[in-house]
Amino acid sequence: MPQVDLCFSPELLALYHLPGKVVVVVDILRATSSIVTALANGVTHVFPVAELAECRALGEQHGCLTAAERDGRAAAGFDLGNSPFGYLDGVVEVKGRAVAISTTNGTHALRRSLAADAVVVGAFLNLQAVVEFAEAQQKDVLVVCAGWKGQFCLEDTVFGGALAARLAASGFDVTSSDATLAALHLWERAEADLPAYLLQSSHVRRLNSLEANKDFVFCLQLDAYPHTLPLWRTDRLVNEVMH
Amino acid sequence: MPQVDLCFSPELLALYHLPGKVVVVVDILRATSSIVTALANGVTHVFPVAELAECRALGEQHGCLTAAERDGRAAAGFDLGNSPFGYLDGVVEVKGRAVAISTTNGTHALRRSLAADAVVVGAFLNLQAVVEFAEAQQKDVLVVCAGWKGQFCLEDTVFGGALAARLAASGFDVTSSDATLAALHLWERAEADLPAYLLQSSHVRRLNSLEANKDFVFCLQLDAYPHTLPLWRTDRLVNEVMH
Repeated sequence: MPQVDLCFSPELLALYHLPGKVVVVVDILRATSSIVTALANGVTHVFPVAELAECRALGEQHGCLTAAERDGRAAAGFDLGNSPFGYLDGVVEVKGRAVAISTTNGTHALRRSLAADAVVVGAFLNLQAVVEFAEAQQKDVLVVCAGWKGQFCLEDTVFGGALAARLAASGFDVTSSDATLAALHLWERAEADLPAYLLQSSHVRRLNSLEANKDFVFCLQLDAYPHTLPLWRTDRLVNEVMH
Repeated sequence: MPQVDLCFSPELLALYHLPGKVVVVVDILRATSSIVTALANGVTHVFPVAELAECRALGEQHGCLTAAERDGRAAAGFDLGNSPFGYLDGVVEVKGRAVAISTTNGTHALRRSLAADAVVVGAFLNLQAVVEFAEAQQKDVLVVCAGWKGQFCLEDTVFGGALAARLAASGFDVTSSDATLAALHLWERAEADLPAYLLQSSHVRRLNSLEANKDFVFCLQLDAYPHTLPLWRTDRLVNEVMH
């Protein structure tokens, strides 16, 4: 019976054995939610990058759109910020384009996970797509939380709990890992009102005060994009079409 | 207002700023529970050591009692195992003696915490002693979970939640850290029946199957030793007499 485990911080990834596993990278606020939204809205592929300079270079050399922010706003000289609405509001035409997205935590989590059999990107927006991919693979699943400055964060953990709850229903073992048990219990507490639950978090409240409340509400929608599964291929994230 | 934070693994300690803080090292099953029991029952001081060879050397050179286990049993050539009952059952006379205790996770957590203003040892057994020490210090508190093989574990986390619940009642801020919020929520779920809650954990069940069920039940008692506070001084843990 395949198992579900959670790693609360990329800093702990060295403790996990990745070969044979499916890794789900999650950074709900907002990197992985934005990546899912991008691929769901016609972006052809995404290059996640850690540094602004690398993001700019991909834009100049490969003609990608570039997405970056500093302190909650689109950084100067980039096409988009880190809001998922950049792929929805029509200000920049994104259909058919590739995007280089600057996301420090998310990129570290991704790059450290590449020894896994498959690396996908998860968010509440594409929860069911992640569930169906895991069900099709029938391999152990490790949710890698990008965390907040390397530390535990509630929103990524609660996503892990929501994923574990659905995979438990299709026969995955969710009781072999204390981290998974904790995430499940937190999800069961959060589920009835996810935004209210997460607004207890001080770093979520800080993000919210940066006029990002609209993003916050958007990123907590379950299954808005149930057919979008960003899958790592060679050097980029592409949308894996589910069969 | 002083804050309560939790670090889920010694592997994450580099992310925390320790000066000015009180660190509470916790390894409920069973290192810190045994250390509290030792000092509550007449042991003069405890040397926590990571390696069996170091433990043996302290015994030979300093005349300490030695406590060590491998695979859930007292290791050959040592006076005691890692069960708290070694300090209670009268088989070895412990009153007035120093003890070198071998505990890999607990020792790592302690040694990595020494930049803090004070390092104490916490367990359910001495929960109230930890609460009163923190109240007297009025400094930020960081609970450092020894964890299980470096990973998140439920029993240490739930202890952190119990501590946070009591410190919240005396004015500490327990909402600035997502880890503390999660620990509080898990404690609120576990509180009504702590043994049943923790027996959901597969590594707790494995420990239990090693004929350590008696230890497990003992270690989950709240406030059995409310006046015992193991405090780090120079190179050892001594019982800090509370005023």
